[in-house]
Amino acid sequence: MIKITLPDGSVKEFGQNSTPMDVARSISEGLARNVISAAFNGTTIETETPLTTDGSLILYTWNDKEGKKAFWHSTSHVMAQVLEEKFPGIKLTLGPAIDNGFYYDVDFGDKKITDADFKAIEDRVLEISREKHEFKMRAVSKAEALEVYKNNEYKTELISNLEDGTITFCDHANFFDLCRGGHIPNTGIIKAMKIMSVAGAYWRGDEKNKQLTRVYGVSFPKQKDLTDYLELLEEAKRRDHRKLGKELDLFTFSQKVGQGLPLWLPKGAALRDRLEQFLKKAQKKAGYEQVVTPHIGQKELYVTSGHYAKYGADSFQPIHTPAEGEEFLLKPMNCPHHCEIYNNKPWSYKDLPKRYAEFGTVYRYEQSGELHGLTRVRGFTQDDAHIFCTPDQLDREFKNVIDLVLYVFGSLGFENFTAQVSLRDKENRDKYIGSDENWEKAESAIISAASDKGLNYVIEYGEAAFYGPKLDFMVKDALGRQWQLGTIQVDYNLPERFELTYKGADDKLHRPVMIHRAPFGSMERFIAILLEHTAGNFPLWLMPEQAIILSLSEKYENYAKKVLELLENHEIRALIDNRNETIGKKIREAEVQKMPFMLIVGEEEEKNGTISVRRHGQEGKGNITVTIEEFAKIVNEEIAKTLKTFEV
Amino acid sequence: MIKITLPDGSVKEFGQNSTPMDVARSISEGLARNVISAAFNGTTIETETPLTTDGSLILYTWNDKEGKKAFWHSTSHVMAQVLEEKFPGIKLTLGPAIDNGFYYDVDFGDKKITDADFKAIEDRVLEISREKHEFKMRAVSKAEALEVYKNNEYKTELISNLEDGTITFCDHANFFDLCRGGHIPNTGIIKAMKIMSVAGAYWRGDEKNKQLTRVYGVSFPKQKDLTDYLELLEEAKRRDHRKLGKELDLFTFSQKVGQGLPLWLPKGAALRDRLEQFLKKAQKKAGYEQVVTPHIGQKELYVTSGHYAKYGADSFQPIHTPAEGEEFLLKPMNCPHHCEIYNNKPWSYKDLPKRYAEFGTVYRYEQSGELHGLTRVRGFTQDDAHIFCTPDQLDREFKNVIDLVLYVFGSLGFENFTAQVSLRDKENRDKYIGSDENWEKAESAIISAASDKGLNYVIEYGEAAFYGPKLDFMVKDALGRQWQLGTIQVDYNLPERFELTYKGADDKLHRPVMIHRAPFGSMERFIAILLEHTAGNFPLWLMPEQAIILSLSEKYENYAKKVLELLENHEIRALIDNRNETIGKKIREAEVQKMPFMLIVGEEEEKNGTISVRRHGQEGKGNITVTIEEFAKIVNEEIAKTLKTFEV
Repeated sequence: MIKITLPDGSVKEFGQNSTPMDVARSISEGLARNVISAAFNGTTIETETPLTTDGSLILYTWNDKEGKKAFWHSTSHVMAQVLEEKFPGIKLTLGPAIDNGFYYDVDFGDKKITDADFKAIEDRVLEISREKHEFKMRAVSKAEALEVYKNNEYKTELISNLEDGTITFCDHANFFDLCRGGHIPNTGIIKAMKIMSVAGAYWRGDEKNKQLTRVYGVSFPKQKDLTDYLELLEEAKRRDHRKLGKELDLFTFSQKVGQGLPLWLPKGAALRDRLEQFLKKAQKKAGYEQVVTPHIGQKELYVTSGHYAKYGADSFQPIHTPAEGEEFLLKPMNCPHHCEIYNNKPWSYKDLPKRYAEFGTVYRYEQSGELHGLTRVRGFTQDDAHIFCTPDQLDREFKNVIDLVLYVFGSLGFENFTAQVSLRDKENRDKYIGSDENWEKAESAIISAASDKGLNYVIEYGEAAFYGPKLDFMVKDALGRQWQLGTIQVDYNLPERFELTYKGADDKLHRPVMIHRAPFGSMERFIAILLEHTAGNFPLWLMPEQAIILSLSEKYENYAKKVLELLENHEIRALIDNRNETIGKKIREAEVQKMPFMLIVGEEEEKNGTISVRRHGQEGKGNITVTIEEFAKIVNEEIAKTLKTFEV
Repeated sequence: MIKITLPDGSVKEFGQNSTPMDVARSISEGLARNVISAAFNGTTIETETPLTTDGSLILYTWNDKEGKKAFWHSTSHVMAQVLEEKFPGIKLTLGPAIDNGFYYDVDFGDKKITDADFKAIEDRVLEISREKHEFKMRAVSKAEALEVYKNNEYKTELISNLEDGTITFCDHANFFDLCRGGHIPNTGIIKAMKIMSVAGAYWRGDEKNKQLTRVYGVSFPKQKDLTDYLELLEEAKRRDHRKLGKELDLFTFSQKVGQGLPLWLPKGAALRDRLEQFLKKAQKKAGYEQVVTPHIGQKELYVTSGHYAKYGADSFQPIHTPAEGEEFLLKPMNCPHHCEIYNNKPWSYKDLPKRYAEFGTVYRYEQSGELHGLTRVRGFTQDDAHIFCTPDQLDREFKNVIDLVLYVFGSLGFENFTAQVSLRDKENRDKYIGSDENWEKAESAIISAASDKGLNYVIEYGEAAFYGPKLDFMVKDALGRQWQLGTIQVDYNLPERFELTYKGADDKLHRPVMIHRAPFGSMERFIAILLEHTAGNFPLWLMPEQAIILSLSEKYENYAKKVLELLENHEIRALIDNRNETIGKKIREAEVQKMPFMLIVGEEEEKNGTISVRRHGQEGKGNITVTIEEFAKIVNEEIAKTLKTFEV
């Protein structure tokens, strides 16, 4: 008999050579129907792999990330089989699962796969799948493996790097492939499959090697899952922040200014400003003080901070001066500057905490291939702040920051989020700066704050920054995608490096603790995510313009101006479209611009001192006719639903 | 007879060899008493120089810049005479007048002048002055001049570079000096003289040459003028923005971050922000749109703009990337970025003007010896904007900008200002970019706007920027010093270089005109000047804190908090000093911090719901006792005196 430990900690005994499927069956028939993959002592195995020793077992279904991985990886075997059928003589290389499906890298030789081939391949994959072929692992000697693949230089290279005795093939139907394992029980559960695209990819990612063809695919256990997935992709395309940014005139890029360096157009700059003012207001209440620091610093500053040693070679290179031999760097972070502000004068424990905030623009070099809209740029503005406090204050400060982050998410409609506590790697501790004692203090402060605030959090070992542990917030957007947003980091390291001190109650000098935090993360990335989350329909308080006054004809210009003035008195941001265009065209353009309210004014409205209000996305010209005061009430009530006052 | 044209255009006839003094006497005895120097056909001469041809004559008194120059240059002769008396064997070199007095560069050989010598030198200068020695010019042949100065290698070098026949000496008393001329009639009017300092100076400013001793002096026609001048210097020292910046916790510098790169402390950052919000509000009314652009750009961008050719070698050097061989520059100006924003989409004449504004931080390399507090820095934030308009709109736009500048000056207490219209050099036109026709259009637009707005302006030829003519505002501060502030520049050049276009009513593409403008100039420099102008007592609307609540003891903390809340409801910025310190100490510290109002709260005040108000700089604890409402009225009335609403 062997002892199997399940994820809930329970231990059950099974006979030698029992399989994960046997374990599943022992729990419930329902589970057995859904189990598609398993992990034994941390290694992915098949559901029919015999278990021969005691150990921990996890069973995976389609709903687990690991389950999907096995599903997609298995589908790549079937696709490879079909590719060999349709394109005899091609050479297969590697075919792993990825986050959204799988790919197979293939050397097509003198053959070529095109979009026109996709349908037939998909059909044939499903045909084979319906035959319910089992995936079976088979051990092969190195010599045999090399013999089998003697005409495939890619597989030969892979096998050469493996140790004899560890090499396995996976068989299904009449197809086999060199494979480590991790498959679903049989092809029968693959009910939908689509080839997404083909692209070039160098063998082993090295551009000195031969270029292969990467065939991307995705598959699902239900046809509807595929339909939903394709719809989600379409919706994501519609919500792509690069597309919306252009349509809404928010930002642009210029080849002349440089890649990855956004230029914020008036509407985008107003949006940024509104977000900044919103956060500034809450931060003021929470006792933060704004500072302003330069965008460059002497190289020595970053040598002191440790950033130069860590990032120097991969960053924008030093800026030299025409005389005096000085060297400056574009600042990759604001923290060293804020440390120097702290160092400007001596502090007593009575003065702490000092909370320095800055919307600080930093510059980090990214390869042009890595750049993507506003989510991956070379210059971005952090909503940065650094809190310098005594060790006793750390816990409270950390909790206050969590409150602030939750307030930000709430006001911006991110209801769905989790947190990740990133701690040091349990073993490899050389890559972190600072003493063990300080790290332990910081790590326990984060965990206690996350627990006390009732966050839904996971702990990840090895994910900490090199200078300290951190708490990151992951939000789920309207399309169910995960994004990392706000971050809070404890730092015992920079205070050492910058020799920061305060005089304690004991009249002696002590080191303050530092907290880095940024609820938005970066203005650029946050706005990109907010755009994709809301499809450009921001919370009303945030919209650059909350209403547009559309005149039925130029005759009503004076009345339109009067309405605008009254709206401004009510602090409603509006503008007038008094062009000599049809009301239909004006409405259509205002819809594209995502104007929350369209206020139509004509003869009737002027006579009665009213406006006809049309809500964005709703049909019909002027849903209701109201006075300005009534309209202001509607606006303020809607704003109050999302934008609360921050309470400390 | 010769014909003499006077500055008012009148022409008078005089006998051959009449002198400027004769001309002065012919106008009035009073003028004759005050004339101390003259210029004939643009060349400075003495009042006793015989006039032998027709020409234009200007007579100068002490009140003219040129008059002071003659006065100070003459005093430097007397000082040189005394230095030779006191330190026999020294070698004189050059002794010109400067903006605030004069200096003489002297090779003291093995001798040394110290502070202890100053008094005796000053006394002797005045003693000689009282003897009323006339300054008389004398022509000398080159051979004779070289013979006279054969032991003085400096004068020998100067004489060698002069043409025979043009060499003159100036005699007074038993002293002579190689001199081009430009003296007062006699030493008798020098009634006060002071040696200000001595410093090292290389011969001809070249550090490869020998170091000389520069003796700085100043002199006046009345003893009281000197006393006033020294008091002014003392007051300027008290108001030095570097000193006030430290006392008021506004900004600091860090050797680690780098010289000339200010770090704005919380109170300074708040001050900046207030100024920015003030200008943003007015600009919004005037139809400007804020944009945000990066602090770097590809080198090519500045090659296109022409800035690289003009400034590249003397600027911060290019930033290289670790891969891809790209080159970026710290932006020295915002204009290229704004041109690229304009270029983001096609415009019609109906869309113009576009007015893009940005508080854009730019970086320019200055040698460390040139750096000075906030007035000469390496990174500064311009309150920049660029207006893109049609040629027809230029005139109106220019006038609107002048209105905005005048509004800014008025709100900040700069009552005293003049304007300078900087046009091209009349002859040397090669250094300017752009066509003659465009320059002429732009120059006439500036002059017409300046005239129409009733500005007190002068025209300076040769002072234009290389890319266009401009209008600069010079303000006089409370100490009577002149500062160049706001600037407005017309630019026909960048629109060409960036190929900016708009579609005209004729359906053809045209070039827009560009206006660069910055009412503050730079936030750093403006705040420095404002600090020195107001000695830190900014207009009430601008003060980071308008009031401080001083509790008589910690017992009144709750009442102090209630007062703070009420003040916040009235939008009055205040803070509480509830430390366990004496009220005397709290008041003294609040005075140093230039708190406009100190609100003292104790038992009496809490009982009656009042505050005792003490105004900054006024004696007595709590001048008046009022309710919060009454106090808010006092504050708002004072603010309304300086801060008007900007009307377009």
